[in-house]
Amino acid sequence: MNNRLSPNNTGPTCATAELICLPDSTLPRIVIVGGGFAGLALIKGLKNRSVQVVLIDKNNFHQFQPLLYQVATSGLEPDSIVFPFRKQIAGYKNIVFRMAKVLEIQTATKTVVTDRGILTYDFLILATGTTTNFFGMKQVEENSLGLKDIRDSLNIRHMMLQNLEQAAITCDAGEREALTSFVIVGGGPAGVEMAGALAEFCRYILPKDYPEYPSSIMKIYLVEATNRILSVMSDKASSKSLQYLKDLNVEVLLNEVVVDYDGTVVTTKSGKRISAKNFIWTAGVRGQLPEGLNGRVNIVRGNRLKVNEYLQVEGCKDVYAMGDVAAVITDETPAGHPQVAQPAIQQGRYLARTLVDIIHQNPIKPFKYNDKGSLATVGKRKAVADLGKFSFTGYFAWLLWSLVHIMSISGFRNRLLVGINWVLSYFSYEKSNRLIIRNFKKNHSQ
Amino acid sequence: MNNRLSPNNTGPTCATAELICLPDSTLPRIVIVGGGFAGLALIKGLKNRSVQVVLIDKNNFHQFQPLLYQVATSGLEPDSIVFPFRKQIAGYKNIVFRMAKVLEIQTATKTVVTDRGILTYDFLILATGTTTNFFGMKQVEENSLGLKDIRDSLNIRHMMLQNLEQAAITCDAGEREALTSFVIVGGGPAGVEMAGALAEFCRYILPKDYPEYPSSIMKIYLVEATNRILSVMSDKASSKSLQYLKDLNVEVLLNEVVVDYDGTVVTTKSGKRISAKNFIWTAGVRGQLPEGLNGRVNIVRGNRLKVNEYLQVEGCKDVYAMGDVAAVITDETPAGHPQVAQPAIQQGRYLARTLVDIIHQNPIKPFKYNDKGSLATVGKRKAVADLGKFSFTGYFAWLLWSLVHIMSISGFRNRLLVGINWVLSYFSYEKSNRLIIRNFKKNHSQ
Repeated sequence: MNNRLSPNNTGPTCATAELICLPDSTLPRIVIVGGGFAGLALIKGLKNRSVQVVLIDKNNFHQFQPLLYQVATSGLEPDSIVFPFRKQIAGYKNIVFRMAKVLEIQTATKTVVTDRGILTYDFLILATGTTTNFFGMKQVEENSLGLKDIRDSLNIRHMMLQNLEQAAITCDAGEREALTSFVIVGGGPAGVEMAGALAEFCRYILPKDYPEYPSSIMKIYLVEATNRILSVMSDKASSKSLQYLKDLNVEVLLNEVVVDYDGTVVTTKSGKRISAKNFIWTAGVRGQLPEGLNGRVNIVRGNRLKVNEYLQVEGCKDVYAMGDVAAVITDETPAGHPQVAQPAIQQGRYLARTLVDIIHQNPIKPFKYNDKGSLATVGKRKAVADLGKFSFTGYFAWLLWSLVHIMSISGFRNRLLVGINWVLSYFSYEKSNRLIIRNFKKNHSQ
Repeated sequence: MNNRLSPNNTGPTCATAELICLPDSTLPRIVIVGGGFAGLALIKGLKNRSVQVVLIDKNNFHQFQPLLYQVATSGLEPDSIVFPFRKQIAGYKNIVFRMAKVLEIQTATKTVVTDRGILTYDFLILATGTTTNFFGMKQVEENSLGLKDIRDSLNIRHMMLQNLEQAAITCDAGEREALTSFVIVGGGPAGVEMAGALAEFCRYILPKDYPEYPSSIMKIYLVEATNRILSVMSDKASSKSLQYLKDLNVEVLLNEVVVDYDGTVVTTKSGKRISAKNFIWTAGVRGQLPEGLNGRVNIVRGNRLKVNEYLQVEGCKDVYAMGDVAAVITDETPAGHPQVAQPAIQQGRYLARTLVDIIHQNPIKPFKYNDKGSLATVGKRKAVADLGKFSFTGYFAWLLWSLVHIMSISGFRNRLLVGINWVLSYFSYEKSNRLIIRNFKKNHSQ
């Protein structure tokens, strides 16, 4: 804890130039890497506690990942679903935010190395989440867009709008078909919700915006490797969502694996070839780990950090992990918890209590996950829900989905914006402006 | 007019692949290049007229330029002040939009060459506006940001927020000073409004978002080459706005010319050196002209196209120009009209009437500009107005400015969004989320 600045308020100074400046404090320092669902829940739990909390994130905002697909399909603007960390921590003097990308952890000296300087920790919490997994297919990776963060959403939006504009310009029927065809890979919640939102765009927006061509020109394919979509949910949810997608004219290809995509033609294992300039990959994720942990820690399937039931990374003193990057491996959860928001939020809240107990040398209890169920939406009034033993679909599931998502978004302003957009959209008014502000180029996404 | 597609609705086909596809029509074709204030006014006037209108623009949206500085300073989101052309023309079958960048005009064959294909015209209207003029100073151009379009606004926003984040990280007092210093060059409306908005950001937002340092750390300089700011307005407006800026702690440097900027240090002609990582250039514009006109037309000061009192480009049959790129040179207006919204809008409306008259071989009248006055705002309740012989300042001028701007924005949704933001901001509530979504790098602006 030598990383200090001057106590006067004319601006910070440090002993050496390589350090990241932090306010002077004699409290134990908890460094949290990553402000996703887990990191944010931990920060909320540590507000006004007798610890110094430093949040490090490469972005200056928390992203509400479950609604990224609505930004991608122009249903919502980005500022509705991302929330600045500095607003979240405003007024809490024991918490500071520093925008930096973590490169390496040096556990021997308890040091975090970032692209902007270094800092030391008493406790380190890794909540770095996951990134898109292309399973080593280089050409697919180069030519496709994932759906993991807000930049991905904006890239998808701009790819799609630019391609629709070019389709109006071209005189080549084959090129126009490719420009208006969409292939989404992965039948999990992200892929299903994306396909549904695109289908609604095609049905409600396209005829108004592009009278040049009939809405039947837009083709949407959802490719899933197994024999059902939403395989983490119940059979009822799975089959009903398949029916919803068919009703919206989405062509669902089950038991199909994409093996190549050259920027225009998608090739599947069974030999199918689909011409499509719009290609979105939601078929897998892998944990994002900083350097310096290899050899010291156990990394399990999906590049996740193995942690014990106290979320401790075994082999690294005072290092914890939580959220999608962590796998709590116990007899009850041999593969860890599902990589969704609920376990991450619960782990963040748990660790806030537990860290305070550890510092005060109180006894600690292991983490227990309380499964509240799963929800997925395909379109307006079309959703599926599994709550414990109950599984239901349709209007009520959709209302529940809307309510749960509105309540989960950070900040009053964001809830208001999303709510207004959804109400306007429900009554079929125009919602978002469809603007091409980024010049999207493949292999050049910011 | 050979550039036609099939009449059926299964999608367009063309005779040759290089043509831009357009709906079949036997009506005279008016091609408008640029959908700014002039282009949009012309389109509105040609709705449902017996002409085929083709709007070509490199963007898919109209931008409300007078409020770009509010997007740059995080007061408004981009979707509030830009409006998609396709929404503007929805339902009007005689108007189509094609997103393309015009490269060259071939007047001999009445052809427009774009980056996406070619098209022919019966009447061509150039409304291509202006771009930032750096007067040949290469190093200044490479290291500075203009404020001419929505991408400039977003680049300024991200430059500023990234620099403020880095200022919180660095331990070097000199680097921190440069990161929190802003130099705006040009004391016209754009520069004055930008400086005022930055000063308000510094006063109201900085203390909440960055408790790390006192708001006095942020320094704002406005550099003007002449002896007064807002020199196009009255002396009263000019001196009052100077007073407003001083009240907001903006340091206004009059009679100073910037001669160099290396990315960190600004050098003026008198030898002043200011260390600033934030540098915004609003000191000049020049007309954006496509290739192919040189030698045929008269280009006057500021790279503007000389047109006669009917907005005709002399020497090019059936070619017209309007808005900032055009200079109506007459005995009354030897230097053309001011390059602001009002003349552009009036020229667009005039040309809509006049083109219809020309097609119907009716007599036409020359364009007359009706000067409605000028308005500029420095901050909340701080504005200046010149209306005819009357000049006034303060609260009423500010209310009038707000009203005029709200009414002028395209689209009900955009007016609503801007209105809500302004009302919330008036009562000092939080308005916009300050997000760093672009990774802004100098010399690499999209």
